[in-house]
Amino acid sequence: MTFSNLKNLERKLNYDFKDKGLLETALTHSSYVNENKMKQYESNERLEFLGDAVLGLVIGEYFYKNFPKDLEGSLTKMRAESVNEKVLFFIAKGLELGDFIRFGKGEKKNGGSKRESTSADALEALIGAIFLDSNFNNAKKIVLNLFDEFLKEDAYKLFNVDFKTMLQEEVQRSGQKAEYKLVREEGPDNDKTFFTELYLDEVLAGKGSGKTKKESQQEAAREALERRRNG
Amino acid sequence: MTFSNLKNLERKLNYDFKDKGLLETALTHSSYVNENKMKQYESNERLEFLGDAVLGLVIGEYFYKNFPKDLEGSLTKMRAESVNEKVLFFIAKGLELGDFIRFGKGEKKNGGSKRESTSADALEALIGAIFLDSNFNNAKKIVLNLFDEFLKEDAYKLFNVDFKTMLQEEVQRSGQKAEYKLVREEGPDNDKTFFTELYLDEVLAGKGSGKTKKESQQEAAREALERRRNG
Repeated sequence: MTFSNLKNLERKLNYDFKDKGLLETALTHSSYVNENKMKQYESNERLEFLGDAVLGLVIGEYFYKNFPKDLEGSLTKMRAESVNEKVLFFIAKGLELGDFIRFGKGEKKNGGSKRESTSADALEALIGAIFLDSNFNNAKKIVLNLFDEFLKEDAYKLFNVDFKTMLQEEVQRSGQKAEYKLVREEGPDNDKTFFTELYLDEVLAGKGSGKTKKESQQEAAREALERRRNG
Repeated sequence: MTFSNLKNLERKLNYDFKDKGLLETALTHSSYVNENKMKQYESNERLEFLGDAVLGLVIGEYFYKNFPKDLEGSLTKMRAESVNEKVLFFIAKGLELGDFIRFGKGEKKNGGSKRESTSADALEALIGAIFLDSNFNNAKKIVLNLFDEFLKEDAYKLFNVDFKTMLQEEVQRSGQKAEYKLVREEGPDNDKTFFTELYLDEVLAGKGSGKTKKESQQEAAREALERRRNG
């Protein structure tokens, strides 16, 4: 890993590190430190701890502001689904982060450099490093830029959100009662479509259809949630 | 709750809200919202979600910077022990926060206003509100001020930290083997003191004594941890 390489990464991030040592540490896997004990390397694990907290606040604030009618349960859920390993890995791949991480030889042989968690962790460490190198607002700008693609999509559709549970949590607060009614089935036995209506305190709140009863209920819950949010 | 009351709280916090509505929301328990459905109140639960993330980053950064030799496992543990409900309640009590929270009548009757979690949650909401009302750095300043008493103390002593587990995690990384040896017992059966020595790869790393074997081991682990940090 040379500094010219790291320049490429900085360009992709649109961030120029004042302290290049922080950048290097963010890209140092613990296996590299363990194999090079003589020198004073630090692994990226402490920075990952910090970056995880930066990410939690940035993405938390994003959902707080963009979903003003969502209760904290659904904010928590959306955030958890946005910063999970798969999403982090996807973003890290876009940066080709795996190519910049330094591993121990053993880890490299064992395919550690290809592990999703390794890139995901390094991305968190990188975010922690930017926070330390500059400030919260700069880190936030870069995080929102990296997550842009995910956050612009309807987070509900992008991730596997359980609308029924989410709705249940919301209506419990307001003391309402949710009831799902299967109102119709269409098509032949091997290719049925189910139609469900969802009633909140006996008022129709959402309709849904799907290839399974559960799918039709999820759709009905999703519609009810959307109406609550826009109403 | 009148605004003159809230002025007192702002004085204690050393923070003047631009948006007093945010401050009121931070102090609104969900039971109050449920009993006053006609008006457009919001409970403090969403702000609590946000404040929890602010707290996580502020306290995380504090431990990151002040414990430069601690691995992320011990940073995570120290942070968890610093932002737990008991600590939050203690700080909330210092602000007499319970007196400012608005509850539903039913909740008040059930003693909800005295519950530790209620004050702890409101404190988190308050921190979230300050973050929204100003910015991360202001929120950080106020949080560090509120937590000053806790953070200045040796966090290890203040909270019930499990030194043995902490040390075990550290030595596992470096591939060392930890062994506790009971070397002596003193005193009569009903008032014994136990003396333990801790060896890392057969080198003496810490000594401890205590009224139980476990306590003496914890002390030995604590000493070894301190030496590693200062060494």
